[in-house]
Amino acid sequence: MNEEIAAIAWQATSAVDHDRVQSRIAELARFGGRSDGGVARETLSSVDRAARRFLVEQARALGCDVAVDDCGNLFFRRPGTEALPPVLTGSHADTQPVGGKLDGAYGVIAGLEVIAALNDAGIRTRRPVEVVAWTNEEGCRFGPGAMGSSAFVGAADLTEYRKSTDGHGVTFGEALDEALAEMADVRRCPMGTPLSAYVELHIEQGPVLEQAGLPLGVVTGIQGVRWYRATCLGQASHAGTTPMERRADAIVAATGMVQRLNEAAAQVHPALRVTMGSWVVEPNSINTIAGKVVFTVDARCPDDAALDRFEEILNRTVTAWDWRGEATLDRFFCKAPTIFHASVLEVVAQACDEVSKQAGFDAAVRLSSGAFHDAMYMAQHCPSAMIFVPSIAGISHNAAEATAPEPLTLGVRALAHAVASLAL
Amino acid sequence: MNEEIAAIAWQATSAVDHDRVQSRIAELARFGGRSDGGVARETLSSVDRAARRFLVEQARALGCDVAVDDCGNLFFRRPGTEALPPVLTGSHADTQPVGGKLDGAYGVIAGLEVIAALNDAGIRTRRPVEVVAWTNEEGCRFGPGAMGSSAFVGAADLTEYRKSTDGHGVTFGEALDEALAEMADVRRCPMGTPLSAYVELHIEQGPVLEQAGLPLGVVTGIQGVRWYRATCLGQASHAGTTPMERRADAIVAATGMVQRLNEAAAQVHPALRVTMGSWVVEPNSINTIAGKVVFTVDARCPDDAALDRFEEILNRTVTAWDWRGEATLDRFFCKAPTIFHASVLEVVAQACDEVSKQAGFDAAVRLSSGAFHDAMYMAQHCPSAMIFVPSIAGISHNAAEATAPEPLTLGVRALAHAVASLAL
Repeated sequence: MNEEIAAIAWQATSAVDHDRVQSRIAELARFGGRSDGGVARETLSSVDRAARRFLVEQARALGCDVAVDDCGNLFFRRPGTEALPPVLTGSHADTQPVGGKLDGAYGVIAGLEVIAALNDAGIRTRRPVEVVAWTNEEGCRFGPGAMGSSAFVGAADLTEYRKSTDGHGVTFGEALDEALAEMADVRRCPMGTPLSAYVELHIEQGPVLEQAGLPLGVVTGIQGVRWYRATCLGQASHAGTTPMERRADAIVAATGMVQRLNEAAAQVHPALRVTMGSWVVEPNSINTIAGKVVFTVDARCPDDAALDRFEEILNRTVTAWDWRGEATLDRFFCKAPTIFHASVLEVVAQACDEVSKQAGFDAAVRLSSGAFHDAMYMAQHCPSAMIFVPSIAGISHNAAEATAPEPLTLGVRALAHAVASLAL
Repeated sequence: MNEEIAAIAWQATSAVDHDRVQSRIAELARFGGRSDGGVARETLSSVDRAARRFLVEQARALGCDVAVDDCGNLFFRRPGTEALPPVLTGSHADTQPVGGKLDGAYGVIAGLEVIAALNDAGIRTRRPVEVVAWTNEEGCRFGPGAMGSSAFVGAADLTEYRKSTDGHGVTFGEALDEALAEMADVRRCPMGTPLSAYVELHIEQGPVLEQAGLPLGVVTGIQGVRWYRATCLGQASHAGTTPMERRADAIVAATGMVQRLNEAAAQVHPALRVTMGSWVVEPNSINTIAGKVVFTVDARCPDDAALDRFEEILNRTVTAWDWRGEATLDRFFCKAPTIFHASVLEVVAQACDEVSKQAGFDAAVRLSSGAFHDAMYMAQHCPSAMIFVPSIAGISHNAAEATAPEPLTLGVRALAHAVASLAL
């Protein structure tokens, strides 16, 4: 980076306003705000639609051109001086049924603050700077998650997404059309338009930064993830009358598999994370031997080869288990690891390191994201990267989700530095 | 046993009518009969009350005096020649929500057949012979099970039982009073009256006799049983963002405990049976580490000291498990093993062995009952014992519950031999 760009990027960084960030977080959290401090703002609900209107007004007040695409993704553009593809930042404004104030919302507000800082510092960029609020990242009302970004990059068909229904039988298409109708004053823009780069600022939702005692993380990629279902079919029978040696006890088999898989995981790769989170036990009665147990396996690693090796062990463990029953394994989801682009990573790393050092901290942590993000799909479309700030106790998807004010501001400063550098 | 008694007992045995047993089983099974061959006759339901009326009519047709006590237990008496306490046999006529034709019903029908055989053979006994149909052995509509026999022997207070409610808010007391009102023509008799002996014939509901290839089992006692609840409290967190070494994964802890307990059980006692049948996993989500797991432990053994040793291991395993969470154990049910009375066992063993040999089989199997029976409470009141016949594939509490016709008849023959021997 040449010195002139670095100096201007630092002006944008310095113009980030701590109080303005805090108050915009609080204002947005009022849409769906709960008495316990949490936020309930599922995608395209009435509170989500009101929050979208609030964001449109905030963006217009900052002088942005506002547009919406066919998937309801909102774009707020600060023009550049040349006809170049924009630098995009942002995240999503929808939450889990009970979420916090920051997951997603922080990245959207940070984008608006970058535009405000550029305005306040009187900086003109060659490339436009755009802020996005993606539709339905959470995937809790309508599955799957990250609908907005995946539809934008064309990774999936919006026609199929429109058929997804919520718990009340409303389709995503119906909810989307209602939201778009309310946005009749907003220009409609195409999906999949070219972009120079995408940078997403997000809370970590894990413990790594807090444990390191550092405010900023450079996210080098997103772990690959594979989901499996193991089905153990034994024989339900009477707990009192069936001798131990004649049992086909599905819970004894399943618990043995879990122990072996948990031990194997540590040997396959130090960063492999394995979770057996969902269980169905039948008939689930105190005095009946379990005849059927179904459990899920969530395996994640930044190294796809490690996921291959674990899958082999998993498959052998389940299907060749030595017992009187039978067990099968099926894989029903697979997403290869995302590796962010070196060019954007370099800019983001410099921004994070400099902002960290200027605030008296060591260089930023390099880490892989354990959770999905819209940046996972954006990386298929343009050079992309992410910045993390710490989550207190690693808690997220919870009313108690929180980040201290200082790292929240440092995150926006790093984002301003990176976006300005990429757009100048 | 002197030779004269043995000869008369054998006359009773020989008078047992194979076809009459088969047709009475089929007739009783029509009350609550299902198209899949099962029977749905929960205690004191309209079909159970109709079945009771059928039994009363059958008993009267055999010349019995019929009586009912305050818990709805039905007694069918064939008088003796002396004023001595009767020899009681029988079982229960209620079923699980989906049960078979034999569990309980077989023992009641067998008792009526013994009376018919005594009649047909023109045998007069010193002691009265009584057949009982106990109320609510299954405990599925109103808990707990074996209400009739436990109330009869005074082991529990009928006043408390009357408060027990079914899934529709009906109390046991209300259902009982309705059934008793319909029985206005039946003499009311007191509970807890003296008895000479109690012999119960029942299907095994397990695989032991079938595996041995023999038609009759002498039940030497009923296993002790203890029920426990283990609660593992970890920390629910994101499957993707939480490093393995920072997890308090309740399912990893619980599955490890189950494996250790299952291994320990085999070392404590060869007849110890341990079942972990009921599981609650929270939040039970594929991509969230389990924060809480509650599982039950059903431990059974004919040897109470072995149950003590297992309880010690169980308690240590759960509470001292090495992980980042905490686990507790509570015991919520405990019933010591029942050991049947040598005097009655000797008569029952001789009856089973002789009937087996006469039919071309080896001597009867000696085994302990894995399931509860009314005889468990009766053994507190008078010398008691049980006879088992095989269950095909050990299946019970299921529409597929079945026993071949020949052992069903041999079971009634052995019962007739034992009851006649005890009553003469």
